[in-house]
Amino acid sequence: MNAEIISVGTELLLGHTVNTDASYVARELSAAGINLLYDCTVGDNPERLRSAVETALGRSDAVITTGGLGPTGDDLTKETVAACAGRKLVRDEESMRRLKRYFQGRFLGESQKKQAMLPEGCTVFQNGCGTAPGCGFRSANGKLVVMLPGPPSELIPMLRESAIPFLLRGTAGAAIVSRIVRVFGLGEGYVAEQIKDLCDGTSPTCATYALTDEMFVRVTARAESAEKAAALCAPVVKDLRRRLGEFCYGVDVESLEDAVVRLLAERRLTVATAESCTGGLLAKRITDIAGASGVFHMGVVTYANEIKTKLLGVPEDMLAQHGAVSPQVARRMAEGVRENAGASLGVGITGIAGPDGGTQEKPVGLVYICLCDGENAWVRRMGAAPGKSRGWIRHMASSNALDMIRRRVLNLGGMETAAYSHERGMH
Amino acid sequence: MNAEIISVGTELLLGHTVNTDASYVARELSAAGINLLYDCTVGDNPERLRSAVETALGRSDAVITTGGLGPTGDDLTKETVAACAGRKLVRDEESMRRLKRYFQGRFLGESQKKQAMLPEGCTVFQNGCGTAPGCGFRSANGKLVVMLPGPPSELIPMLRESAIPFLLRGTAGAAIVSRIVRVFGLGEGYVAEQIKDLCDGTSPTCATYALTDEMFVRVTARAESAEKAAALCAPVVKDLRRRLGEFCYGVDVESLEDAVVRLLAERRLTVATAESCTGGLLAKRITDIAGASGVFHMGVVTYANEIKTKLLGVPEDMLAQHGAVSPQVARRMAEGVRENAGASLGVGITGIAGPDGGTQEKPVGLVYICLCDGENAWVRRMGAAPGKSRGWIRHMASSNALDMIRRRVLNLGGMETAAYSHERGMH
Repeated sequence: MNAEIISVGTELLLGHTVNTDASYVARELSAAGINLLYDCTVGDNPERLRSAVETALGRSDAVITTGGLGPTGDDLTKETVAACAGRKLVRDEESMRRLKRYFQGRFLGESQKKQAMLPEGCTVFQNGCGTAPGCGFRSANGKLVVMLPGPPSELIPMLRESAIPFLLRGTAGAAIVSRIVRVFGLGEGYVAEQIKDLCDGTSPTCATYALTDEMFVRVTARAESAEKAAALCAPVVKDLRRRLGEFCYGVDVESLEDAVVRLLAERRLTVATAESCTGGLLAKRITDIAGASGVFHMGVVTYANEIKTKLLGVPEDMLAQHGAVSPQVARRMAEGVRENAGASLGVGITGIAGPDGGTQEKPVGLVYICLCDGENAWVRRMGAAPGKSRGWIRHMASSNALDMIRRRVLNLGGMETAAYSHERGMH
Repeated sequence: MNAEIISVGTELLLGHTVNTDASYVARELSAAGINLLYDCTVGDNPERLRSAVETALGRSDAVITTGGLGPTGDDLTKETVAACAGRKLVRDEESMRRLKRYFQGRFLGESQKKQAMLPEGCTVFQNGCGTAPGCGFRSANGKLVVMLPGPPSELIPMLRESAIPFLLRGTAGAAIVSRIVRVFGLGEGYVAEQIKDLCDGTSPTCATYALTDEMFVRVTARAESAEKAAALCAPVVKDLRRRLGEFCYGVDVESLEDAVVRLLAERRLTVATAESCTGGLLAKRITDIAGASGVFHMGVVTYANEIKTKLLGVPEDMLAQHGAVSPQVARRMAEGVRENAGASLGVGITGIAGPDGGTQEKPVGLVYICLCDGENAWVRRMGAAPGKSRGWIRHMASSNALDMIRRRVLNLGGMETAAYSHERGMH
C-alpha cells in the first residue's frame, strides 16, 4: 500500500513548530509495512489544502492528514478533505455525547460542537486525550482517508490504537507489535552490518536507528492478532540479544538511565555521584527516572578544586601533582562520595568539556570516569573528541558512567573500555 | 514572493530523522518576508522528485530543495532538478579546486567529483562545513531555484549567508537582521496581546515563539545593508524591552542560564546549589554554559533526608515537623550550601516532581525554591501542576531558581512570585 501524509498548519510553514507528527506517522507506517511516498505540509488555507488532497487522492492508496481538527476558525481539514473525497459531514452522536461530558458545567459553543461533525459512514477514532475525534473512511474514488488531530499527545495514541489498525483492516495482518532493542557502545552502521540478514526480513522487519550516543533496533511484526505478532517478534529479539551480547542493555526500556535505575533497584544497590565536567548531568539523568530515590541518595557537583578537597577529601597535593583531570582524582572523587553517602557504588567524573581549557597534553574531550564499589575501582578514559560539542562530550561521559554501573552490577567486564571507540563503529 | 520547500531523503519518509531542515528554512524565509506555501518531502526516487519539482515550478515563485547533493548513488537532486528546470549540469572549476583541497592526499573518486557538477550559469554557494556546494539559479520558466545540502551544520550557514541573500537579490532589501528578545515569566499569548501593534508591522516584523517554559520575540528587518536593517530593529527592540520590563531577561542571549551565568560573572558573584526534586538539573543547566566555572564551584543533590541533614545541616526535627517539601527545608538547604561553598548566593530546591508521591496536602507539582544571600532569604512556591509531566515540573523549578538569581542580582523584586501564574498568561 502506498501512502501520503498531508500535515495542515500555518505554524509549520512559519517554522515555529518542528513537524514531529509527520515523523511519528512515518515511523508507524513504515513499521506497518506501508510505503510512504510523499509528505506535504500546507497552511490553514482551504484552496491549497484542496489542491494537495486532490493530488494525493489521485496518486496514493491512502492519505493521512494531521492537524486542523480543532474548534477554531482556521481548523478546516474536515470540511475540505470530506469535500474532496466526496463525503458529506454529519453529526456523530457518540462524539457529541463525549464533548458534552468533557464540557460538563461549562458553555459548549457552536465552534466546539463542530468537532462532532464527521464524514458520513466513517470509522470514528475517539480521542482519549483531547476533544477532537479523528476518523477513517473510503473516498468516493476508493482511496483510504485518515484524519488525525495535531497535538502529538493526541495523535500518537490514536495513530497506534485506531489509525494503523484501520489502514491494515482487510489486509493480511491487522495487528502490529513492535519491540525496541536498545544498545550502548556499538555504532549504528556496525550493528546494521551484524544484522543485515535480519533487516532484509519482511515479518518481522528490523530497522536500526541512531541517537546522540547510542542506537536501537526496532523489530516489528504483523499478524492477525497481537499474540501472533508478538510470537513472531520473540525469536528475532532473542537472536538480536545473542548477537549484540553485553552491548544490548534492554528491550522495551526507555533509556540507559531507566535500565540502570531498574537494575540497581532489583539488586537493592545504591549509587552516589561526584561530578566535575558533567556538572550534575549524571545525577539529573538518574533522577529523571521516577523512583530513583530508592537507588540514589546523594550526588555532588565539585566544579572547583577546593570543593573536591573539602567535600570528597581529594588531597591538594594529588591535584597539584596530577591535575584535576586525572585518573587519580576521578578515583578519589568516586571513593569520597561513596563513603560520604554510604552507598554501594560511587562514581567520579572529571574532564575537559570545552570549548576552551584544552591543552596538547589534556585536550578537549579528555574525561576520566571512575566507578568504585568499596573493594575495587575502575577508570575509563575518553580521549580527545575533535569537532564534538561541549554538550556531546558531557552526554557521552554520563552515558559511559551509566554503562560502567551496569557492567559492574552484571559482572560483564569491559569496565575500562570507553564506549567511544572506532573498532565498534562509534565515531 | 511565494516559495515552496522540497526536502529530499528516504530517511525522512521512514521517520528515522525529524525534518528540522524544513523548519530552519521555513523560519528564515518567514523572517525574510517570503511566503512559504508548501513544504513537501519525497524519497530518493527520481520520478517522484521530478513530479514534485514540476508541480512546484508550476505554482510557486521560488523552489528550495534540501538534501541529496552528496556523492552517493541516491544523491540525485541536482540531476533531477536541473533537468526539470531546463538547465544542464557543467563542472564548476572553483568547486573542483575546493574538493581537491579537501581530499588532499586521499583518493578523489568520480562520485566525489560529481559534487562539482552544477547547473550552468548558477550562483554557487560554497560549503564551508562540508563537501557538497549548494547553488541558486533561474529555471527556464523564470522561477528561482535554490538547492541546499541536507546536514543541518552545512545547511544553516549556507541558508543565512548565501541562499536568503540570493532569493532577495533584486528585491527591495537584500540584507536581513534578526534580534531575539527573550522573556521568562509571561505566557506567549499574553505577550502577543501586549505587542499586537508591533506584530502587525512589516519591517521590522515581530513574531512570538513559545518554548517549554518561556517565550521569545523575534524582530526582523530587511534593508539594503545590514547596518540599515540593524538600525530598523533597534527602536523596536528598545520598545519591546520597555513593554516587557523585568520579564525580558536578555536580547540575543542563548537561554536563561546563559543570561544568569553572564550576569554573575559581570558582578563577580558565585552561586551554590542544593537540589532535591530537580536532582542536579539546575547545576547541569548552569554548567551547560562554557565558563560557568567562574561563578559556580559547588552543587549538591541531596535526594535523601539523611543526606540533607549530613551535608547541609537540615535539622532532623525540622524534617520531621514540616516534611522535606517545605519552605523551611528549602531555606535551610540554600543556607547550608551557601555556607559550605563560601558562595555569594545559595539556592535550595525541594518538591514533588511526580508522577507518584503526591498527597492532598502536598500534591505533585508542589515545589519550594529558596534563594539566600547571607542576609536575606526568599522562598518561591510552585503549586499543584495537574497534567504536567515530571520533566516539565523539574524544568520549571530550575527556571524559577534561575529567575530568582537574576532578580536578586538586579534588585528587581518579585522574588516570591512563581513564574507559573495564570495572571501572566502562563498555564
